[in-house]
Amino acid sequence: MVLPIRRIILELPAWVGDWVVAHPLPQAATDRLSVDQTRMRWVIDLAQEQVARGSGGPFAAAIVDGNSGALVSVGVNVVEASHCALAHAEMVAMGLAQQGEDSFNLAASAHPNCMLYSSSEPCAMCYGALPWSGVGRLVCGAAAADAIAIGFDEGEKPADWIDALAQRGIAVTTDCCREQAVAMLQRYASSQGVIYNGGRYGSS
Amino acid sequence: MVLPIRRIILELPAWVGDWVVAHPLPQAATDRLSVDQTRMRWVIDLAQEQVARGSGGPFAAAIVDGNSGALVSVGVNVVEASHCALAHAEMVAMGLAQQGEDSFNLAASAHPNCMLYSSSEPCAMCYGALPWSGVGRLVCGAAAADAIAIGFDEGEKPADWIDALAQRGIAVTTDCCREQAVAMLQRYASSQGVIYNGGRYGSS
Repeated sequence: MVLPIRRIILELPAWVGDWVVAHPLPQAATDRLSVDQTRMRWVIDLAQEQVARGSGGPFAAAIVDGNSGALVSVGVNVVEASHCALAHAEMVAMGLAQQGEDSFNLAASAHPNCMLYSSSEPCAMCYGALPWSGVGRLVCGAAAADAIAIGFDEGEKPADWIDALAQRGIAVTTDCCREQAVAMLQRYASSQGVIYNGGRYGSS
Repeated sequence: MVLPIRRIILELPAWVGDWVVAHPLPQAATDRLSVDQTRMRWVIDLAQEQVARGSGGPFAAAIVDGNSGALVSVGVNVVEASHCALAHAEMVAMGLAQQGEDSFNLAASAHPNCMLYSSSEPCAMCYGALPWSGVGRLVCGAAAADAIAIGFDEGEKPADWIDALAQRGIAVTTDCCREQAVAMLQRYASSQGVIYNGGRYGSS
Protein backbone atom coordinates (compact mmCIF):
# COMPACT_ATOMS: atom_id res chain seq x y z
CA MET A 1 0.00 0.00 0.00
CA VAL A 2 1.16 3.51 -0.79
CA LEU A 3 0.38 6.02 1.95
CA PRO A 4 -2.16 8.53 0.65
CA ILE A 5 -0.53 11.51 2.36
CA ARG A 6 2.53 11.99 4.52
CA ARG A 7 2.01 15.51 5.86
CA ILE A 8 -0.61 17.05 8.12
CA ILE A 9 -1.11 20.74 7.40
CA LEU A 10 -3.01 22.94 9.84
CA GLU A 11 -3.43 26.47 8.54
CA LEU A 12 -4.90 29.64 9.99
CA PRO A 13 -7.69 31.23 7.94
CA ALA A 14 -6.28 33.81 5.52
CA TRP A 15 -7.95 36.73 7.31
CA VAL A 16 -6.20 36.11 10.65
CA GLY A 17 -2.84 37.57 9.62
CA ASP A 18 -4.45 40.79 8.39
CA TRP A 19 -6.62 41.00 11.49
CA VAL A 20 -3.61 40.76 13.78
CA VAL A 21 -1.86 43.53 11.85
CA ALA A 22 -4.96 45.73 12.01
CA HIS A 23 -5.62 44.95 15.69
CA PRO A 24 -2.30 44.87 17.55
CA LEU A 25 -2.38 43.15 20.91
CA PRO A 26 -2.52 45.95 23.52
CA GLN A 27 0.75 46.21 25.42
CA ALA A 28 -0.77 47.55 28.62
CA ALA A 29 -3.94 47.39 30.65
CA THR A 30 -6.75 49.35 28.98
CA ASP A 31 -10.23 50.60 29.76
CA ARG A 32 -10.09 49.80 33.48
CA LEU A 33 -9.26 46.20 32.61
CA SER A 34 -6.29 44.30 34.01
CA VAL A 35 -3.54 43.09 31.69
CA ASP A 36 -5.09 39.62 31.68
CA GLN A 37 -8.52 41.00 30.91
CA THR A 38 -7.12 43.21 28.17
CA ARG A 39 -5.47 40.25 26.48
CA MET A 40 -8.53 38.05 26.94
CA ARG A 41 -10.84 40.67 25.43
CA TRP A 42 -8.51 40.70 22.41
CA VAL A 43 -8.72 36.90 22.13
CA ILE A 44 -12.52 37.04 22.43
CA ASP A 45 -12.55 39.69 19.68
CA LEU A 46 -10.54 37.29 17.51
CA ALA A 47 -13.05 34.52 18.21
CA GLN A 48 -15.90 36.93 17.45
CA GLU A 49 -14.28 37.74 14.10
CA GLN A 50 -14.12 34.01 13.38
CA VAL A 51 -17.84 33.77 14.18
CA ALA A 52 -18.67 36.80 12.01
CA ARG A 53 -16.70 35.37 9.08
CA GLY A 54 -18.05 31.84 9.52
CA SER A 55 -14.56 30.41 9.25
CA GLY A 56 -14.85 27.84 12.02
CA GLY A 57 -15.85 27.04 15.56
CA PRO A 58 -16.17 29.91 18.08
CA PHE A 59 -12.84 29.40 19.75
CA ALA A 60 -9.63 31.45 19.71
CA ALA A 61 -6.38 31.42 21.64
CA ALA A 62 -3.17 33.41 21.85
CA ILE A 63 0.25 32.78 23.30
CA VAL A 64 1.85 35.84 24.87
CA ASP A 65 5.39 36.24 26.18
CA GLY A 66 4.78 36.95 29.85
CA ASN A 67 8.03 38.85 30.15
CA SER A 68 7.86 41.17 27.15
CA GLY A 69 4.11 41.13 26.50
CA ALA A 70 4.80 40.23 22.87
CA LEU A 71 2.36 38.12 20.91
CA VAL A 72 4.01 34.77 20.12
CA SER A 73 1.18 33.07 18.21
CA VAL A 74 -2.56 32.93 17.73
CA GLY A 75 -4.91 30.09 17.01
CA VAL A 76 -8.50 29.66 15.96
CA ASN A 77 -10.43 26.45 15.60
CA VAL A 78 -9.93 25.11 12.07
CA VAL A 79 -11.29 21.60 12.58
CA GLU A 80 -13.75 21.82 9.71
CA ALA A 81 -11.63 23.77 7.25
CA SER A 82 -8.58 21.56 7.78
CA HIS A 83 -10.51 18.28 7.98
CA CYS A 84 -8.68 17.55 11.19
CA ALA A 85 -10.06 17.11 14.70
CA LEU A 86 -6.70 18.02 16.23
CA ALA A 87 -7.07 21.63 15.07
CA HIS A 88 -8.57 23.20 18.18
CA ALA A 89 -7.61 26.83 18.78
CA GLU A 90 -5.22 26.02 21.62
CA MET A 91 -3.49 23.26 19.63
CA VAL A 92 -3.05 25.59 16.67
CA ALA A 93 -1.61 28.31 18.91
CA MET A 94 0.78 25.88 20.62
CA GLY A 95 1.92 24.24 17.39
CA LEU A 96 2.46 27.57 15.62
CA ALA A 97 4.40 28.93 18.58
CA GLN A 98 6.60 25.84 18.71
CA GLN A 99 7.29 25.67 14.99
CA GLY A 100 7.73 29.44 14.85
CA GLU A 101 10.39 29.12 17.55
CA ASP A 102 11.87 25.89 16.14
CA SER A 103 11.39 24.34 19.55
CA PHE A 104 8.96 21.65 20.70
CA ASN A 105 9.36 23.06 24.20
CA LEU A 106 8.54 26.75 24.56
CA ALA A 107 10.10 26.79 28.03
CA ALA A 108 13.45 26.23 26.29
CA SER A 109 12.76 28.77 23.52
CA ALA A 110 13.43 32.49 23.18
CA HIS A 111 10.08 32.96 24.98
CA PRO A 112 10.52 30.84 28.13
CA ASN A 113 7.61 32.44 29.97
CA CYS A 114 4.72 31.78 27.59
CA MET A 115 1.13 32.29 28.65
CA LEU A 116 -1.78 30.72 26.79
CA TYR A 117 -5.00 32.75 26.70
CA SER A 118 -7.96 30.70 25.52
CA SER A 119 -11.47 32.00 24.92
CA SER A 120 -12.78 28.77 26.45
CA GLU A 121 -11.44 26.28 28.96
CA PRO A 122 -9.39 23.62 27.12
CA CYS A 123 -10.96 20.28 26.27
CA ALA A 124 -9.37 17.03 27.40
CA MET A 125 -7.02 16.94 24.38
CA CYS A 126 -5.80 20.52 24.73
CA TYR A 127 -5.41 20.01 28.48
CA GLY A 128 -3.26 16.97 27.80
CA ALA A 129 -1.12 18.92 25.33
CA LEU A 130 -0.29 21.71 27.79
CA PRO A 131 2.40 19.88 29.81
CA TRP A 132 4.31 19.03 26.61
CA SER A 133 4.10 22.55 25.22
CA GLY A 134 6.36 24.46 27.57
CA VAL A 135 3.58 26.96 28.28
CA GLY A 136 3.86 28.22 31.86
CA ARG A 137 0.43 29.68 32.46
CA LEU A 138 -3.12 29.16 31.18
CA VAL A 139 -5.85 31.81 31.31
CA CYS A 140 -9.38 30.72 30.36
CA GLY A 141 -12.44 32.77 29.40
CA ALA A 142 -15.59 30.67 29.20
CA ALA A 143 -15.87 27.53 31.32
CA ALA A 144 -16.28 24.07 29.83
CA ALA A 145 -19.89 24.18 31.02
CA ASP A 146 -20.49 27.23 28.83
CA ALA A 147 -19.29 25.44 25.68
CA ILE A 148 -21.29 22.37 26.66
CA ALA A 149 -24.37 24.56 27.15
CA ILE A 150 -24.37 25.43 23.44
CA GLY A 151 -23.75 21.83 22.41
CA PHE A 152 -19.98 21.31 22.25
CA ASP A 153 -18.35 18.26 23.83
CA GLU A 154 -15.33 18.90 26.04
CA GLY A 155 -14.24 15.35 26.85
CA GLU A 156 -13.18 14.07 30.24
CA LYS A 157 -10.33 15.82 32.03
CA PRO A 158 -9.15 14.57 35.43
CA ALA A 159 -11.32 16.04 38.19
CA ASP A 160 -8.26 17.80 39.64
CA TRP A 161 -6.91 19.06 36.31
CA ILE A 162 -6.07 22.51 37.63
CA ASP A 163 -4.03 21.02 40.48
CA ALA A 164 -2.40 18.56 38.10
CA LEU A 165 -1.19 21.44 35.91
CA ALA A 166 -0.11 23.45 38.95
CA GLN A 167 2.06 20.54 40.07
CA ARG A 168 3.75 20.72 36.69
CA GLY A 169 4.46 24.43 37.11
CA ILE A 170 1.56 25.58 34.94
CA ALA A 171 -0.62 28.11 36.76
CA VAL A 172 -4.29 28.28 35.74
CA THR A 173 -6.62 31.27 35.89
CA THR A 174 -10.28 30.65 35.07
CA ASP A 175 -13.30 32.91 34.43
CA CYS A 176 -11.29 35.77 32.90
CA CYS A 177 -13.90 37.88 31.04
CA ARG A 178 -16.16 34.86 31.18
CA GLU A 179 -19.26 36.96 30.59
CA GLN A 180 -17.87 38.35 27.33
CA ALA A 181 -16.68 34.91 26.25
CA VAL A 182 -20.09 33.40 26.90
CA ALA A 183 -21.81 36.19 24.99
CA MET A 184 -19.60 35.38 21.98
CA LEU A 185 -20.44 31.67 22.23
CA GLN A 186 -24.13 32.51 22.41
CA ARG A 187 -23.90 34.75 19.35
CA TYR A 188 -22.39 31.77 17.51
CA ALA A 189 -25.17 29.46 18.69
CA SER A 190 -27.92 31.92 17.82
CA SER A 191 -26.42 32.44 14.36
CA GLN A 192 -26.92 28.70 13.86
CA GLY A 193 -23.22 27.97 13.65
CA VAL A 194 -22.34 24.36 13.13
CA ILE A 195 -21.92 22.47 16.41
CA TYR A 196 -19.58 19.83 15.05
CA ASN A 197 -18.69 17.02 17.37
CA GLY A 198 -16.51 14.29 15.99
CA GLY A 199 -16.49 10.76 17.18
CA ARG A 200 -18.88 7.92 17.44
CA TYR A 201 -22.00 9.98 17.80
CA GLY A 202 -21.40 11.98 14.65
CA SER A 203 -21.99 15.67 14.19
CA SER A 204 -25.02 17.33 15.63
CA MET B 1 2.94 42.46 14.55
CA VAL B 2 3.18 40.12 11.59
CA LEU B 3 2.60 36.47 12.44
CA PRO B 4 5.84 34.54 11.91
CA ILE B 5 4.12 31.48 10.44
CA ARG B 6 0.55 30.54 9.67
CA ARG B 7 0.81 26.81 8.99
CA ILE B 8 1.75 23.88 11.17
CA ILE B 9 3.28 21.05 9.15
CA LEU B 10 3.70 17.60 10.67
CA GLU B 11 5.49 15.23 8.32
CA LEU B 12 6.36 11.55 8.47
CA PRO B 13 10.06 10.73 8.12
CA ALA B 14 10.93 10.09 4.47
CA TRP B 15 11.69 6.39 5.05
CA VAL B 16 8.21 5.55 6.35
CA GLY B 17 6.51 5.50 2.94
CA ASP B 18 9.10 3.11 1.53
CA TRP B 19 8.95 0.94 4.63
CA VAL B 20 5.19 0.55 4.33
CA VAL B 21 5.53 -0.45 0.67
CA ALA B 22 8.26 -2.97 1.52
CA HIS B 23 6.41 -4.32 4.57
CA PRO B 24 2.71 -4.58 3.74
CA LEU B 25 0.41 -4.87 6.73
CA PRO B 26 -0.54 -8.58 6.95
CA GLN B 27 -4.14 -9.14 6.00
CA ALA B 28 -4.69 -12.20 8.19
CA ALA B 29 -3.49 -13.71 11.43
CA THR B 30 0.07 -15.03 11.11
CA ASP B 31 2.54 -17.17 13.07
CA ARG B 32 0.01 -18.36 15.66
CA LEU B 33 -0.81 -14.73 16.45
CA SER B 34 -4.31 -13.30 16.48
CA VAL B 35 -5.24 -10.57 14.02
CA ASP B 36 -4.72 -7.95 16.72
CA GLN B 37 -1.35 -9.37 17.64
CA THR B 38 -0.32 -9.56 13.98
CA ARG B 39 -1.16 -5.90 13.47
CA MET B 40 0.51 -4.87 16.73
CA ARG B 41 3.72 -6.74 15.87
CA TRP B 42 3.75 -4.78 12.60
CA VAL B 43 3.35 -1.48 14.50
CA ILE B 44 6.13 -2.47 16.91
CA ASP B 45 8.32 -3.30 13.89
CA LEU B 46 7.62 0.20 12.58
CA ALA B 47 8.62 1.69 15.95
CA GLN B 48 11.73 -0.48 15.97
CA GLU B 49 12.66 0.85 12.53
CA GLN B 50 12.27 4.38 13.90
CA VAL B 51 14.61 3.45 16.77
CA ALA B 52 17.14 1.89 14.39
CA ARG B 53 17.12 4.97 12.15
CA GLY B 54 17.22 7.41 15.05
CA SER B 55 14.42 9.42 13.49
CA GLY B 56 12.48 10.10 16.68
CA GLY B 57 10.93 8.76 19.86
CA PRO B 58 10.21 5.02 20.11
CA PHE B 59 6.52 5.23 19.37
CA ALA B 60 4.47 4.14 16.36
CA ALA B 61 0.79 3.81 15.57
CA ALA B 62 -1.44 2.66 12.75
CA ILE B 63 -5.08 3.10 11.88
CA VAL B 64 -6.67 0.04 10.29
CA ASP B 65 -10.11 -0.28 8.75
CA GLY B 66 -11.72 -2.86 11.00
CA ASN B 67 -14.06 -4.00 8.25
CA SER B 68 -11.66 -4.45 5.33
CA GLY B 69 -8.37 -4.79 7.24
CA ALA B 70 -6.89 -2.06 5.05
CA LEU B 71 -4.23 0.25 6.42
CA VAL B 72 -5.67 3.77 6.65
CA SER B 73 -2.65 5.63 8.06
CA VAL B 74 0.50 5.27 10.11
CA GLY B 75 2.20 7.58 12.55
CA VAL B 76 5.53 7.78 14.30
CA ASN B 77 6.63 10.29 16.89
CA VAL B 78 8.11 13.30 15.11
CA VAL B 79 8.20 15.73 18.04
CA GLU B 80 11.88 16.53 17.67
CA ALA B 81 12.11 16.56 13.89
CA SER B 82 9.01 18.73 13.50
CA HIS B 83 9.75 21.01 16.45
CA CYS B 84 6.23 20.33 17.68
CA ALA B 85 5.10 18.64 20.88
CA LEU B 86 1.75 17.73 19.31
CA ALA B 87 3.42 15.24 16.99
CA HIS B 88 3.00 12.05 18.97
CA ALA B 89 2.60 8.88 16.91
CA GLU B 90 -1.12 8.57 17.62
CA MET B 91 -1.78 12.24 16.78
CA VAL B 92 0.11 11.88 13.51
CA ALA B 93 -1.83 8.73 12.62
CA MET B 94 -5.18 10.35 13.46
CA GLY B 95 -4.41 13.59 11.63
CA LEU B 96 -3.11 11.82 8.51
CA ALA B 97 -6.15 9.53 8.45
CA GLN B 98 -8.53 12.48 8.78
CA GLN B 99 -6.84 14.67 6.18
CA GLY B 100 -6.36 11.65 3.89
CA GLU B 101 -10.11 11.04 4.11
CA ASP B 102 -11.01 14.75 3.99
CA SER B 103 -13.02 14.24 7.17
CA PHE B 104 -12.36 15.42 10.70
CA ASN B 105 -14.51 12.52 11.88
CA LEU B 106 -13.37 9.09 10.71
CA ALA B 107 -16.68 7.59 11.86
CA ALA B 108 -18.32 9.58 9.06
CA SER B 109 -15.61 8.75 6.48
CA ALA B 110 -15.20 5.93 3.97
CA HIS B 111 -13.63 3.97 6.86
CA PRO B 112 -16.28 4.24 9.59
CA ASN B 113 -14.86 1.38 11.66
CA CYS B 114 -11.32 2.60 12.30
CA MET B 115 -9.08 0.93 14.86
CA LEU B 116 -6.01 2.64 16.29
CA TYR B 117 -3.09 0.37 17.14
CA SER B 118 -0.48 2.12 19.27
CA SER B 119 2.85 0.66 20.35
CA SER B 120 2.31 2.33 23.75
CA GLU B 121 -0.73 3.40 25.74
CA PRO B 122 -1.69 6.95 24.73
CA CYS B 123 -0.60 9.88 26.87
CA ALA B 124 -3.16 12.34 28.25
CA MET B 125 -3.16 14.41 25.02
CA CYS B 126 -3.61 11.46 22.67
CA TYR B 127 -6.28 10.05 25.00
CA GLY B 128 -8.11 13.37 24.82
CA ALA B 129 -7.90 13.40 21.03
CA LEU B 130 -9.49 9.97 20.60
CA PRO B 131 -13.13 10.99 21.15
CA TRP B 132 -12.82 13.70 18.48
CA SER B 133 -11.16 11.42 15.94
CA GLY B 134 -13.96 9.05 15.04
CA VAL B 135 -11.78 6.06 15.87
CA GLY B 136 -13.92 3.22 17.24
CA ARG B 137 -11.36 1.04 18.93
CA LEU B 138 -7.94 1.45 20.57
CA VAL B 139 -5.41 -1.37 20.94
CA CYS B 140 -2.30 -0.66 23.07
CA GLY B 141 1.04 -2.47 23.28
CA ALA B 142 3.18 -1.20 26.15
CA ALA B 143 1.49 0.28 29.22
CA ALA B 144 2.06 3.87 30.33
CA ALA B 145 4.14 2.48 33.19
CA ASP B 146 6.52 0.92 30.66
CA ALA B 147 7.16 4.25 28.92
CA ILE B 148 7.53 5.95 32.30
CA ALA B 149 10.02 3.27 33.33
CA ILE B 150 12.43 4.44 30.63
CA GLY B 151 11.89 8.12 31.47
CA PHE B 152 9.00 9.36 29.35
CA ASP B 153 6.19 11.40 30.89
CA GLU B 154 2.63 10.32 30.09
CA GLY B 155 0.62 13.10 31.73
CA GLU B 156 -2.50 12.63 33.80
CA LYS B 157 -5.45 10.81 32.28
CA PRO B 158 -8.66 10.34 34.28
CA ALA B 159 -8.38 7.28 36.52
CA ASP B 160 -11.29 5.66 34.65
CA TRP B 161 -10.06 6.56 31.16
CA ILE B 162 -10.84 3.15 29.68
CA ASP B 163 -14.43 3.33 30.95
CA ALA B 164 -14.72 6.93 29.77
CA LEU B 165 -13.77 5.87 26.23
CA ALA B 166 -16.08 2.83 26.41
CA GLN B 167 -18.98 5.11 27.26
CA ARG B 168 -18.18 7.02 24.08
CA GLY B 169 -18.28 3.85 22.00
CA ILE B 170 -14.50 3.42 21.86
CA ALA B 171 -13.45 -0.05 23.00
CA VAL B 172 -9.96 -0.37 24.50
CA THR B 173 -7.68 -3.41 24.49
CA THR B 174 -4.48 -3.17 26.52
CA ASP B 175 -1.34 -5.31 26.79
CA CYS B 176 -1.39 -6.55 23.19
CA CYS B 177 2.14 -7.88 22.56
CA ARG B 178 3.22 -5.83 25.56
CA GLU B 179 6.37 -7.89 26.01
CA GLN B 180 7.55 -7.13 22.48
CA ALA B 181 6.61 -3.46 22.85
CA VAL B 182 8.56 -3.18 26.09
CA ALA B 183 11.58 -4.86 24.52
CA MET B 184 11.53 -2.23 21.76
CA LEU B 185 11.33 0.59 24.33
CA GLN B 186 14.22 -0.91 26.23
CA ARG B 187 16.33 -1.17 23.09
CA TYR B 188 15.71 2.55 22.59
CA ALA B 189 16.69 3.35 26.18
CA SER B 190 19.83 1.21 26.06
CA SER B 191 20.87 2.84 22.77
CA GLN B 192 20.83 6.14 24.68
CA GLY B 193 17.99 7.55 22.64
CA VAL B 194 16.89 11.01 23.65
CA ILE B 195 14.22 11.00 26.35
CA TYR B 196 12.73 14.36 25.44
CA ASN B 197 10.09 15.70 27.76
CA GLY B 198 8.71 19.09 27.00
CA GLY B 199 7.31 21.44 29.52
CA ARG B 200 8.48 23.24 32.58
CA TYR B 201 11.06 20.72 33.64
CA GLY B 202 12.89 20.79 30.33
CA SER B 203 14.26 17.79 28.53
CA SER B 204 16.01 15.04 30.39
